[in-house]
Amino acid sequence: MSALPLKGLIVLEFSQYLSGPSAGLRLADLGARVIKIERPGTGEAGRKLSIKNLWAADGSSLLFHTINRNKESFAADLKNADDLEKVKQLIAQADVITHNFRPGVMEKAGLSFAEVQAINPRVIYAEISGYGKRGPWKNRPGQDLLLQSMSGLTYTTGDAVNGPVPFGLSIGDTLCGAQLVQGILAALIRRSKTGQGAFVEISLLESLLDFQFELLTTYYASGKQPQRSNINNGHPLLSAPYGIYATDAGYIAIAMNDLQQVAKAVQCNDLLQYGPQDAFSKRDEIKECIAKHLLTNTASYWQQQLHAAGLWAMEVLNWQQLSQQDGYRRLQMEQALRMKDGTQVITTRCPIRINGQKLYSTTPGPVVGEHNKQITREFLTTTTA
Amino acid sequence: MSALPLKGLIVLEFSQYLSGPSAGLRLADLGARVIKIERPGTGEAGRKLSIKNLWAADGSSLLFHTINRNKESFAADLKNADDLEKVKQLIAQADVITHNFRPGVMEKAGLSFAEVQAINPRVIYAEISGYGKRGPWKNRPGQDLLLQSMSGLTYTTGDAVNGPVPFGLSIGDTLCGAQLVQGILAALIRRSKTGQGAFVEISLLESLLDFQFELLTTYYASGKQPQRSNINNGHPLLSAPYGIYATDAGYIAIAMNDLQQVAKAVQCNDLLQYGPQDAFSKRDEIKECIAKHLLTNTASYWQQQLHAAGLWAMEVLNWQQLSQQDGYRRLQMEQALRMKDGTQVITTRCPIRINGQKLYSTTPGPVVGEHNKQITREFLTTTTA
Repeated sequence: MSALPLKGLIVLEFSQYLSGPSAGLRLADLGARVIKIERPGTGEAGRKLSIKNLWAADGSSLLFHTINRNKESFAADLKNADDLEKVKQLIAQADVITHNFRPGVMEKAGLSFAEVQAINPRVIYAEISGYGKRGPWKNRPGQDLLLQSMSGLTYTTGDAVNGPVPFGLSIGDTLCGAQLVQGILAALIRRSKTGQGAFVEISLLESLLDFQFELLTTYYASGKQPQRSNINNGHPLLSAPYGIYATDAGYIAIAMNDLQQVAKAVQCNDLLQYGPQDAFSKRDEIKECIAKHLLTNTASYWQQQLHAAGLWAMEVLNWQQLSQQDGYRRLQMEQALRMKDGTQVITTRCPIRINGQKLYSTTPGPVVGEHNKQITREFLTTTTA
Repeated sequence: MSALPLKGLIVLEFSQYLSGPSAGLRLADLGARVIKIERPGTGEAGRKLSIKNLWAADGSSLLFHTINRNKESFAADLKNADDLEKVKQLIAQADVITHNFRPGVMEKAGLSFAEVQAINPRVIYAEISGYGKRGPWKNRPGQDLLLQSMSGLTYTTGDAVNGPVPFGLSIGDTLCGAQLVQGILAALIRRSKTGQGAFVEISLLESLLDFQFELLTTYYASGKQPQRSNINNGHPLLSAPYGIYATDAGYIAIAMNDLQQVAKAVQCNDLLQYGPQDAFSKRDEIKECIAKHLLTNTASYWQQQLHAAGLWAMEVLNWQQLSQQDGYRRLQMEQALRMKDGTQVITTRCPIRINGQKLYSTTPGPVVGEHNKQITREFLTTTTA
């Protein structure tokens, strides 16, 4: 087994909740040593963000442990001069620092990019904001649903007749965290040549606009708002049959396919009247025709018919159905965190494989300040008793 | 202006459609020289993937130009021995190669990881598959909607009463492309220390499972399927009021907030009867109560009331409304590609800022084989006339 690619790198994570910690998680998955800098006692705010009221025995939420697994914790009160001095000593020896505080918070603590750079010119200073740090929105709360709602994204999903529909997961946090990692690693590559650190900035809003590049490019070019179909919407820019359909038993997804081929595969005579020229202009009408026909048999039957014709279709699965499939088990995506009370928490692993190696990490999130002693011994000049 | 962080890196992109090319785009945004290896004549399949039938004058789709901007094209027929030899010469001088062909295609061309590594042991070989390269699903089509449907993701979005609802954008392609970049850059960092290349693998399905880590962890822990609310679903794991609500004029998103504070801010007496203990267990009932009340005034009014109380809420915008906002304009997310016929295509820029610099690139996607001469001159030993 070769060493993990980021082994030897030291990351100080001032981040909280999801976006920043998800970046730290990926850096840890890939081998970096990630040290959370947390306020003494309560720790970072994400510890109290529970999903369905599931908590670990240490009082932090299950969610906290999944996204902060494999990290260390150094408790420090940034308003206390001694603690701040220790944090600055850590910064002097770190490769990366991340934060996702609102604009002004790190500056107030005396840890602006300029101040950090003065301590350590080689450091990569990476920050996430909600809306960028300038302009009228800079102090708005950087919360995922709110960002989805004001970025246009909620007009991509669900049917046009139903109004805007949000993605049911924290898409802005996830994308922004992933892009922060990209910026950090790119800056580290440059540093290996030039010795220079960098300032990497990203915002949830910019991430969500980038995510919508197809739609926005279409909108800029046409001046017209892309419209979702009224039924079975799959993507506002794509023509029939693209979408998910109810059947007599279960649901089936049908992607881009030639209408004539679909008609033949599912033996739907009514559909034969439509050609490629109709696929967008008569989108609702065609989808209605397909929807009605697919109610006459099961998703499993339709999948067989469509696959036999080489067409793109798939039965829709929920988590229970998925986790029973051999194809799912073969991926070995599950891993167990060994909690301090002896119990296990099953979560997902890093999706990236390096040299055939799947990246597992069994250490749960740290207790607040769990590593103060160890980190003090390794990194700090202890002038105080 | 400092040099872009990946300046000097050479990437050969054998990728097509969205996932692989989106990774190449980000590498190009960050300064890498990305050369598409395309079949002569038709080029990569994504050139014919149009959005709303919008095409550039060169016959490639607008979508192709947005996701392949700032790249070069080298036309080569991998089944032709001379062409393959040229490609191998390029591989010998490249830092990264990416592909997202189905399992077996690159192997058949004589360009498996082992063969490529024999040519260039320093190369990072990065590949995307749909479902991993082993197991019963390995030959299934790696299409975004199909992957969403079989990964459980469609049970996160929309209301429970409406059946599964897909995300209206290519989320699997986007996440997988972003994670491929992470793997590539991490492997390059290791190479700068060890001189060794690496094999980076990722699949659309693993990316989508990773994306659902909160849900899957909850499901593994409880054995129960998370359920969306029947109305106004925002996230299956979150309690009322989380969701988007219709008003007398427009829609408003309301995120995690204390129910009592919401009740007071929007002057809703009926809501006062609910406390934090009810927020999940009576989710539908509470959402119905809020939904009914919010129909009595406008989204703009409710936003004022909720913001005045310091609560997390936001009016929902479509693209037209968004693009008229000062906060949007201040981000300067738009950039113009200068097409060869003199026209401009407006698209979005890279969301990452480095040292305060926004990363723009004005060069559209290449014509198939546009850079054969230049690349031949720079990289190839031309033994043929």
